[in-house]
This record gives sequence, C-alpha cells and structure tokens, in this order.
Amino acid sequence: MFLTVMTVAEALAALAPARRSAVHDVAPALGIVPARDVLAPELIPGYARATVDGYAVRAVDTYAASETLPAFLEVTGAVAMGRAPEGEVGPGAAMTIPTGGLLPHGADAVVMVEHTTEPMPGHVELLRRVAPGDGVLHAGEEARPGGSLAPAGRPLRAADLGLLAAAGVTSLAACARPRVGIVSTGDEVVPGSTRELAPGQVRDACAPALAGLVREAGGEPVLRGIVPDDAAALERVLRDSVAEDDMVVVSAGSSVGARDLTAGVAAQLGDVVCHGLAVKPGKPTLLADCGGVPLLGLPGNPRSALVVFRLVGVPLVRAVAGITAPPPSPAVRARLARDVPSAAGRLDVVQASISEGVATPIFGSSALLGPMARADGWFRVAEADTGLVAGVEVAVELYG
Amino acid sequence: MFLTVMTVAEALAALAPARRSAVHDVAPALGIVPARDVLAPELIPGYARATVDGYAVRAVDTYAASETLPAFLEVTGAVAMGRAPEGEVGPGAAMTIPTGGLLPHGADAVVMVEHTTEPMPGHVELLRRVAPGDGVLHAGEEARPGGSLAPAGRPLRAADLGLLAAAGVTSLAACARPRVGIVSTGDEVVPGSTRELAPGQVRDACAPALAGLVREAGGEPVLRGIVPDDAAALERVLRDSVAEDDMVVVSAGSSVGARDLTAGVAAQLGDVVCHGLAVKPGKPTLLADCGGVPLLGLPGNPRSALVVFRLVGVPLVRAVAGITAPPPSPAVRARLARDVPSAAGRLDVVQASISEGVATPIFGSSALLGPMARADGWFRVAEADTGLVAGVEVAVELYG
Repeated sequence: MFLTVMTVAEALAALAPARRSAVHDVAPALGIVPARDVLAPELIPGYARATVDGYAVRAVDTYAASETLPAFLEVTGAVAMGRAPEGEVGPGAAMTIPTGGLLPHGADAVVMVEHTTEPMPGHVELLRRVAPGDGVLHAGEEARPGGSLAPAGRPLRAADLGLLAAAGVTSLAACARPRVGIVSTGDEVVPGSTRELAPGQVRDACAPALAGLVREAGGEPVLRGIVPDDAAALERVLRDSVAEDDMVVVSAGSSVGARDLTAGVAAQLGDVVCHGLAVKPGKPTLLADCGGVPLLGLPGNPRSALVVFRLVGVPLVRAVAGITAPPPSPAVRARLARDVPSAAGRLDVVQASISEGVATPIFGSSALLGPMARADGWFRVAEADTGLVAGVEVAVELYG
Repeated sequence: MFLTVMTVAEALAALAPARRSAVHDVAPALGIVPARDVLAPELIPGYARATVDGYAVRAVDTYAASETLPAFLEVTGAVAMGRAPEGEVGPGAAMTIPTGGLLPHGADAVVMVEHTTEPMPGHVELLRRVAPGDGVLHAGEEARPGGSLAPAGRPLRAADLGLLAAAGVTSLAACARPRVGIVSTGDEVVPGSTRELAPGQVRDACAPALAGLVREAGGEPVLRGIVPDDAAALERVLRDSVAEDDMVVVSAGSSVGARDLTAGVAAQLGDVVCHGLAVKPGKPTLLADCGGVPLLGLPGNPRSALVVFRLVGVPLVRAVAGITAPPPSPAVRARLARDVPSAAGRLDVVQASISEGVATPIFGSSALLGPMARADGWFRVAEADTGLVAGVEVAVELYG
C-alpha cells in the first residue's frame, strides 16, 4: 500500500510544483509578497534633516568650542517644521532647528540643544564641537532612487510598510494569496454545524483546522465541502479544485479503503510522487503533481493531518505563494521531562507543554486533537534517532 | 522634560488599564479570544470507535492467540463507515471494521488487519492477542460534557478550530479585537499617498507600520489621520479616540516642542504614568491612563516608535484584547558577530541579521527604518548590562 515511503525532505524535493499564484498590483499590506524587489522611486529623505533639536551651524565654526571656552554664534533665524528654511547659515551664524527640520543652506551640522546655552537673546554658546554631518540625516540616507526597499519573496512586515509609505509607494506587484482547495472525504463525515450526530457520524474537524493553517501559511482556503467515499464523486470535486485552485488538500478518510480511493483518483489526475511519509503521526500521506498543481492527501486522523500539513503543506503553500524567504521557524529550547522512544528511520513529531524551561511531552492516540490543542508547541525526534532521553535539550516550535 | 524615566517592566506595571474590549458571540476563527473557557456540550467521540482497520472482537477470545497458534474466529458481519453496526459480536465471533468505524456491541477491542490472516471466507485468524480497549477510541476520550475545549484568554489556533468543530461548537463568547486609534502628529507629516513632497515634508511612515503591528498583536487599527502641531486640534482628535476606541496610540512629533504638546494634551485627558522610557531607541515615550483607556505616546522617529510599540504597545493591546496567555516570544539563539556597547540602566534594542548561527548587529540612526526592514529580528542588551562582547550567545526575537 505504501508504494514509496519518503522522508519529509525527500518528499519536498520530489514535489516541486510549477504552479505559482497570479501576480497583480496591490497596495502594501501586512503579509503581501512582493513579486519583484520594490524599488525606491526617489531619494529618502529628499533633503538633509536634523536628527536632534538644536542649532544648525557650520561645523568649522565649532572646532574650537569646549565647555570652558564656548563658541559664540549669532542666531539668525529659526527653521520651522515642514517648511523650507528661510535664509541660510553664514559664517559665525546659527539657526534653531527642530528634530526633522530641513537643514538650511550653509549649515552642515546640528548641535544638540543640550550642549548649548543662550547667554542673551539672539545668540548661542556651543559647549561642544561637532563634525560635518553630526546631527544630520543626509538626503538619500534611507534610500536612493532604484535602491531596494523590500525584497521579492519575503512577506511584508510592519517596518516594510513604514518604509514603503515613506517612499510614497502605494502599489506594488505582488503574488496573490494562493487558493488552496480543501476537500474533506468520508461517508462518516458531516458538517461542523450538524446539531445531532447519528451513530457513526463525526463532524468535519479537519477542514476548519486546515483552513486556519492555510491562512497562517499565506494562502486563501477554499472549502470544497465533504465528499462521500465514492470514486466518481471524489474525482469530480478534485478535478474542479485542480482546475480552479493553486493547490489541493484532501483530508483523506482514515480507513485503508478511503485512502486507496484517494490514491486512485489522484493517480488519474496527476503523477503520484509520494505515497507514504516516514513521519509519526502521519504515514498515510500522498503527494501528487497534477499538471503543476500540487495535491496533498492527508492522513484521516485530524492530528496526523495537521502535523503533516505543517511539515509538508506549509512549505508547499509558501512555494506556490512566491515566498522564497525561509520560514522564521521560531523555537524555544527546553529540557525534556521524560524519555521519548522512537523508531529509527522515522521522524517523530511530539506535542509538548513548556513550563520553566522544561518540555513535557503530551502523548495520546493520534485520533485525538486534544493533545495538540493543549500543547504549547512541538518538537522533532529526527529520523536518525532512536529516541531522546530525559534531560536533553530540545527545540520546541511554538504554536501562535 | 522626562519626569519619570522608567524601565519597560515598571511602565507596564504602572499602567494596568481597566479597559477591555467588548464580549460578543462569534463563530470560531483563527485568533479569536475566548472570553470564557469553551466547554464541550457533549461526549466526543459520542461512541467508541476503531482507531485501526481490522476486526472488532472480544479481547478474551484473543488471549491464547500467537503467531504459531492463531485464534480462529467466525466473521459475522461488517461495520460500515458512518453507520450504526448491524448486529453484535458474540463469543468466538468478529466483525470487520474500518478506522473510525463504530465499535459494535459485544466487542471491546479491534485487532489490526496486519495481525490477521483470512484462511477461508467468513473466518479470520488472529496472530496476536489484544487487551480490552486496544485499537479503540473510547466515547468521551477527546472530551466529556462540561470539559474545557479551549481556555479563556488564549487566541484560538488551528487545532482548537478542529476540536471546536468536532464538538459542534459554532458560536462562542469572545473578546472583540480592540479598536486601537492611531494618531499621527506633526506639521511636516503628509499622507503616504502624497505624490510630490514640498521641502521639509515627510510622508506618514508610522501609521501604516503601527497598523501592521496592531493587527499582529490582535487589535483592529483605526487610522485617525494626521494632526498638525496644534494643542486644540490634537486634543479634539485624542478626545474622540479616547471616547470611541479601546486604546490610543500617538506617533508624537520628533521635536521637543511636539512631544511637549502631546504630553500637555495627554495630561488634560488622563493621568500620565510614565514620561520617558529607559530604552534605546525609544526614550521619549509617554504613557497615560485616560479613564481606563491606555494612551501611548510614541517617539517621533519611526524606528524608535516601532521598537517601543513592540515592547509596550503589544502587551497593552493583548491586555485590552482579553489575552491572558503569555506571548509566544519565539527566539533563535545566535553568536554575536561583534561587540555591542550599551549604557547601564537602559535597555538597548538592537536590530540584527542572522546567518549560520551568527547575529550581526545592524546599526544606524534611529531616524532610519532601513536597519529594521533589513533585519531578521532583534535582541536586547538588558538594563543591567554595559554591553555585550563578540561571541556571546544572544536570543534574537524574529520578525514574522
């Protein structure tokens, strides 16, 4: 039944889907993926500006200044915020300037107000010397025309939004969030809104959980409903999803019969590149390339399905979304509270709670979602390991 | 000017706002914050189910079974997926059952098909013995009526969505995303959509960047526009925001005058609890309690503003949002590429890029956003430290 059992790395190498989501012009927003480097259209800032409150001066006039022998300058004007300075700074002169104020002609430095005294109106004493450029943000110091403001393939973050706004970028070529079709299967599966279950029925837990992970990964979930264990019905729905979506995820039934059904239909729609993953939980995983559109058949147990989606589905969504930056994969290190057995040649994904630097594994049937819902994160026991002993440090990847 | 310079911890302790966002009934979705523990309305699963494909049996009939001396049982029926079993399992009998199938009366265990042979139609040989409960998920093993499915105060994650769907929970009492008013100030500040800047003008970089951080923290940004450096105008806008929003953020002007203006207006609207933060960059930070609504006055430099918002604003948004779970604060450890000087008594926030386990600090004027946009994350030099030397390990908190 498991034609080709692969490691996660092998599976991801075997399925490099051609599909990419469409490129369109959008306004900058959190998580938007630039399709190309976003280039600065102009100098930022456009003019030299003060970075401190103080006095715009010619640095050369301050070279002899010290606490004991201050330089004495005439204040010939004041730079107002948001306006071009009136007048310029000549030899022996200074102008008051606020942080962010535009540096007047003639001046090449700004002395902090904290390093000055005002002995009489219209004059200032400088207690320190400054070099040219001190207290000044030069024109183009943030960006020059044609310089990169944000790289292609990395979702925009808060700082990027600020930088793009500063540059006046109101539109950029971006990869659309890929449409990820989510197909639930199983004669026993009914919608989550079903009030009363008949004996043997279960509500669809996978689809809403997968939709959440798809969103987190940068995709747009397209819920394609629940399909009974019927080859013709499944083929119809999967064919539609392959035609209309950028990626297809099937939460296959949990029984051997249901899995065989999914595998059979997938083989009709594309090339099955992996049928069995060396992961616990998560072995019954199927990967197919349907004319460039990746199809991921997940195990029937909800928790196994979510584990596999994090390992395989998230990288696929990111690839189709045009994201080339590596995922942040944040983790905390914690000492393992107890031994964790594992079989060699298989990646074990273990749920864990964390408290005061100690990771306590949470076990339980992979048919249960509870152990994952109660966990703070998860850690891996690598393929090469036959287990981990209590007290070793593990890297726990955290849930949101 | 800085009346009370506080550490971040002191500032957060001093401002414990009474404000909480409204509680309303919503459908479960990613990031929703339950206002109360979400309780299971029924047994999950409602009936005992098979966790493997195989044969439903009475465990007692298998006790003598082994590879060399298999137990021989009559197959009296088949459990169909999603339906109540027809008939029951008597002594010496077995029924075929798929994973997820409902355990028939009489049976108390399921033998995996891999551990059986079918010597002739209608009969099965069991090569291993099983104990009662083997291969079975018991009724209520996921949850019992009244048991907690998801805790109050922790944003819902993918696994929670699955669990709630399995339990048929389609609505829950949740804290609304808090409205966070974002007010930009400064005579020099113009909207990001401004094509041509007059000399001295800058586009509003702070508001869109802050809006991104507010969203990440679980809030809903309310952009209240740009206010000139005018006390009456600022008071009008801040009064509206305090009345209508759950939290108010002001990107104060960068000059002393603009900051004094914000401080003056804040003092009219509430109690100023902090005016100066022992953080670099970020000292000119103001915190006020306006009748329970927290008001955060940020430094004028965009990068300082974003640093302070992560340190102080995010915890405030989370508190108002009803989030009591600690933030995940994920970090990677990396060796420092070079010495980082710092003054004692002040928290330094340093931007850094990470490559192959080495963190390279990115310096530059705090008036520049670029160092933050180019960074992979940031690390702290704690208040007590006077700097860090090259080669030490730092914990770098990663940007999305």
